[in-house]
Amino acid sequence: MIRRDDVGQSAYELIEELYPICRSITGDGVRQTLDRLCNVVPLQVHEVPSGTRVLDWLVPDEWNIRDAWIKDDQGNRVVDFRSHNLHVVNYSEPIQRVVSRTELLEHVHSLPDHPDWIPYRTAYYKRDWGFCVSQRQLDSLKQSQYEVCIDSSLEPGHLTYGEVYLPGESERELVISSHVCHPSLCNDNLSGVCIAILLAQHWSKLPRRLSLRFLFAPGTIGAITWLARNRDQLDRILGGVTLTCLGDKSPFTYKRSWVGDSTIDRAAERSLKTSPYEHKCIDFFPYGYDERQYNSPAFRLPFGSLMRARHQQFDEYHTSADDLSFIDPTHLQQSYDLLNQLIQDLQNSHYFRNAAGEAEPQLGRRGVFPSLNGDADLQMAALWTLNLSDGNNSLVDVAERSNMPISLIEQAAKILNRFDLLMEV
Amino acid sequence: MIRRDDVGQSAYELIEELYPICRSITGDGVRQTLDRLCNVVPLQVHEVPSGTRVLDWLVPDEWNIRDAWIKDDQGNRVVDFRSHNLHVVNYSEPIQRVVSRTELLEHVHSLPDHPDWIPYRTAYYKRDWGFCVSQRQLDSLKQSQYEVCIDSSLEPGHLTYGEVYLPGESERELVISSHVCHPSLCNDNLSGVCIAILLAQHWSKLPRRLSLRFLFAPGTIGAITWLARNRDQLDRILGGVTLTCLGDKSPFTYKRSWVGDSTIDRAAERSLKTSPYEHKCIDFFPYGYDERQYNSPAFRLPFGSLMRARHQQFDEYHTSADDLSFIDPTHLQQSYDLLNQLIQDLQNSHYFRNAAGEAEPQLGRRGVFPSLNGDADLQMAALWTLNLSDGNNSLVDVAERSNMPISLIEQAAKILNRFDLLMEV
Amino acid sequence: MIRRDDVGQSAYELIEELYPICRSITGDGVRQTLDRLCNVVPLQVHEVPSGTRVLDWLVPDEWNIRDAWIKDDQGNRVVDFRSHNLHVVNYSEPIQRVVSRTELLEHVHSLPDHPDWIPYRTAYYKRDWGFCVSQRQLDSLKQSQYEVCIDSSLEPGHLTYGEVYLPGESERELVISSHVCHPSLCNDNLSGVCIAILLAQHWSKLPRRLSLRFLFAPGTIGAITWLARNRDQLDRILGGVTLTCLGDKSPFTYKRSWVGDSTIDRAAERSLKTSPYEHKCIDFFPYGYDERQYNSPAFRLPFGSLMRARHQQFDEYHTSADDLSFIDPTHLQQSYDLLNQLIQDLQNSHYFRNAAGEAEPQLGRRGVFPSLNGDADLQMAALWTLNLSDGNNSLVDVAERSNMPISLIEQAAKILNRFDLLMEV
Repeated sequence: MIRRDDVGQSAYELIEELYPICRSITGDGVRQTLDRLCNVVPLQVHEVPSGTRVLDWLVPDEWNIRDAWIKDDQGNRVVDFRSHNLHVVNYSEPIQRVVSRTELLEHVHSLPDHPDWIPYRTAYYKRDWGFCVSQRQLDSLKQSQYEVCIDSSLEPGHLTYGEVYLPGESERELVISSHVCHPSLCNDNLSGVCIAILLAQHWSKLPRRLSLRFLFAPGTIGAITWLARNRDQLDRILGGVTLTCLGDKSPFTYKRSWVGDSTIDRAAERSLKTSPYEHKCIDFFPYGYDERQYNSPAFRLPFGSLMRARHQQFDEYHTSADDLSFIDPTHLQQSYDLLNQLIQDLQNSHYFRNAAGEAEPQLGRRGVFPSLNGDADLQMAALWTLNLSDGNNSLVDVAERSNMPISLIEQAAKILNRFDLLMEV
Repeated sequence: MIRRDDVGQSAYELIEELYPICRSITGDGVRQTLDRLCNVVPLQVHEVPSGTRVLDWLVPDEWNIRDAWIKDDQGNRVVDFRSHNLHVVNYSEPIQRVVSRTELLEHVHSLPDHPDWIPYRTAYYKRDWGFCVSQRQLDSLKQSQYEVCIDSSLEPGHLTYGEVYLPGESERELVISSHVCHPSLCNDNLSGVCIAILLAQHWSKLPRRLSLRFLFAPGTIGAITWLARNRDQLDRILGGVTLTCLGDKSPFTYKRSWVGDSTIDRAAERSLKTSPYEHKCIDFFPYGYDERQYNSPAFRLPFGSLMRARHQQFDEYHTSADDLSFIDPTHLQQSYDLLNQLIQDLQNSHYFRNAAGEAEPQLGRRGVFPSLNGDADLQMAALWTLNLSDGNNSLVDVAERSNMPISLIEQAAKILNRFDLLMEV
Repeated sequence: MIRRDDVGQSAYELIEELYPICRSITGDGVRQTLDRLCNVVPLQVHEVPSGTRVLDWLVPDEWNIRDAWIKDDQGNRVVDFRSHNLHVVNYSEPIQRVVSRTELLEHVHSLPDHPDWIPYRTAYYKRDWGFCVSQRQLDSLKQSQYEVCIDSSLEPGHLTYGEVYLPGESERELVISSHVCHPSLCNDNLSGVCIAILLAQHWSKLPRRLSLRFLFAPGTIGAITWLARNRDQLDRILGGVTLTCLGDKSPFTYKRSWVGDSTIDRAAERSLKTSPYEHKCIDFFPYGYDERQYNSPAFRLPFGSLMRARHQQFDEYHTSADDLSFIDPTHLQQSYDLLNQLIQDLQNSHYFRNAAGEAEPQLGRRGVFPSLNGDADLQMAALWTLNLSDGNNSLVDVAERSNMPISLIEQAAKILNRFDLLMEV
């Protein structure tokens, strides 16, 4: 049971547990990860057979790996999958043989600028094999030949993804999506995954007006699979956010949906603006994470993306340096708080109509003033709420136009509601 | 008979006459005020019985006051309604008895920061009594008890408001609304009231395309009463302006309507921009004066508000310092001129269609050029007028888009009209 | 045959040939000019009889001139049409007689601020005669009388204009219009005329999606005549540009169409923005050249105007100083290149629909990646093209939204097309 008041620490500890698992876009690593998440809040786990056509794509064969190494002529493992799962190019096909140094180097990736870091490489959609090593390891490969072994399997199986669906009073749903396919990389994207599951846990216990859906799926192919299997229900979606890189110390970046000013965009920008955190908002572009798929022409679902460090723009991106030291509980907590606020704001996006009176209602006669405590701000919030509640403005819209905190608007709306002055539409 | 060329002085003199009257939201003070305004231009005066339901509100009992005082044990009036009507909390219920100093102080209001000023307080919608005094007066109340007397009545009667309706060629109307409920306060709002009546007088003698309506009603309850009684005719309203605080020396502020870019807003902003006066335009907010009611959700009538000093933002606001020395003829005149220009611009908002020719008409063949006097600006104004006159742009729109003075556009339109080159739509 | 790679020089040489001809809004000067243009690319030449009603206008009598002079009492030509055709007020009626110096001076125009320049004056629509001289010439007219002769004719004839219509796959057409009525003035507007004919020649040899129309017509009356005679086909027009003053060294100015954000406006602004040239974009106003007529209320055809020096804003405007030294091949070449790019961009304004897959198509499975050469920009261009190709965004729109060069977007679209991933709509 995770305590809400130290959710940053809880997220961090969950990341610690999940960090060693070797995930990929298919295979047991994803299953183990989803199993662990199930302990936080029950997930519905889906298995989709390899070869299934999903939109324009085909679900690939399933990849699993047990071990991998490069041995020198002494039999020493000079590169060892057991010490870091990034050492193997993700989706490498099985191999075991002696190769010349020259051939080996064609299959070895390193980062000359960061001699101690191991890069993260994949070969999802072409049959290949390879190793990722630190530049220092690479420099020490001086023998003329090495034995290489990748004890993997790449065979028909399944693609696995999970989702938590929390029905609300309304079928309209908000989707939180995080890619679950990366191996030992903390910020990208165990941070997103773990914050999402803790948000799911938190909101599973709260009354909900909007339905919430949390998706844990492998990048690209997972989102496409989900879209293909749920196309009949996409019109229920109010909007969504993809989560990534939420544990580091960078300022926040919100990447807008394709539409750019959807409810989710406005709510997210507002959550950021009223937060104490440094941030910026950027326009949509068709790169990054699964917001690419959700926003594509046939769907145009308004999905934004929330991140701290931006993919490809920080050195540690897709390297072994994106480890447990690159993130911390404090920044995870901030990210959680921000998203929690966003969900809460959207949950509170009630649309009201001014119920009594067509001009301002007579607050005095109705005894409303004592409830407003002589608080000038609260009174102003009440006037704004009454003025804008014509059925077309949510409380978030009231907060935006009045430039007052949503919490104050909600407080005012609650009081006005108590006096039957608002009517939800 | 008021001379147009010194209307600022006339407004000031009218304010001087009306200043001593003790107005409130009901009662004889309003009636006397409207009577005096009737001498400038005839008003239709309406009396609405107490208890009448108007939208969500009830017309309150009528309040009248004859005298009030606080006497010391020598029988001296240490506070005297006859010396300033602000001394009584407006709508105080009748009382006459001896009270302890302690009890008295619970009913006495002062302004410690301005020891010589008397505050203005009301108790419209709760039964109460009270006095407003200068801090110096308060400090001198050292006796242990005082006799207090408020010789008022608070009984079923009527709410009174007045209006001047000046029909134009069209039923479309522009509304000028000013609250008439304040006692001895000059800027707020005898300035608005007196400028309005002088504008009514001026326009009563001029040909009018638009109809004009001038409303003189008590704040809030008056506007709500008028809305309730005229709801079938509200669709005739092109827009309106509430007038307040127009006699002091502050720069102008135009507060936009809820819609923000209605015809009235654009015309008002344009009048200000082309005036020599310092000014700013601010967005609507549901506080201030009766624009709150006109812009409320069920009506959304585009009413802006014109003011100099802004309510609650100047020290003299709602105090005895808002007296005859706080305003002056020069600034009243500027306010009048600005509003007169606004009305004139709206009266001149003709919509034309280019009548002859679909491209530019052949001005030379038609002998138009001599009428344009070789004046390059006038010629340009004519070209803009011809170009934009497609039935959807008024002359004001032409002025806005061309960024030329409306007077020049009007002059050009008049010339083009003479040559049958424009057709009014 | 003009070589594309030195089109600036070719334009300059063509201007040199056309410079001596005395053009006007009618007459043989226009015919000779159009004849010469016919050698570059065949024109369809139209002759419209004097007196023909065209919209609100009447086609005027035709003006031709053979000679003109002012002779002193020695019989010397002190002002000689043969030395400069600007010496005669364009459309002067014939005259030959002795006039007093006083009478002569009423018919003589000069530029005191530029004592060596001859002004350009016209008298199209009123019967008059006159001479234009340098201030120095004027100062030397000291005799008491002179013989003046203008050997012109002003009689029923025709108005002449030419057009090149290059049909494309689509009937939608782009119009390039340049006024052809000015006598010996280089920048205004032999520069526009010659660049237009060279563009016509260039595009006559290229495949075209859009149809192209190049109009060479006298100012105002020519455009109006064309509009009157082609009103049934105006709905085919996507947009147009008037060309003027394109040979001098000023930065570019693009004057937007009345609409302001039409396809042509956005394409023109984009061409400028992606060009290396200094430039600005200004809003439409109903003065300048024939964009006035095309944008008039009954038509509202989105015609912008491209220029370097702006009419009336440079000293040489409408004077003999607008000669062959005021323009140069380099700046003509830039103007040509810019317009060529604009036409090309519009020709390439294909509207596609993402053909395969509703989210991103599986580029890997389809073997697209090798064609993208591992070029990150090209890959991004492909993703943008796929993302925005929903049938409502042209490739130009893709370039705008992605802020990538149109050439890269086109390259990406070509590759995607090859893999059947785009479907033209």
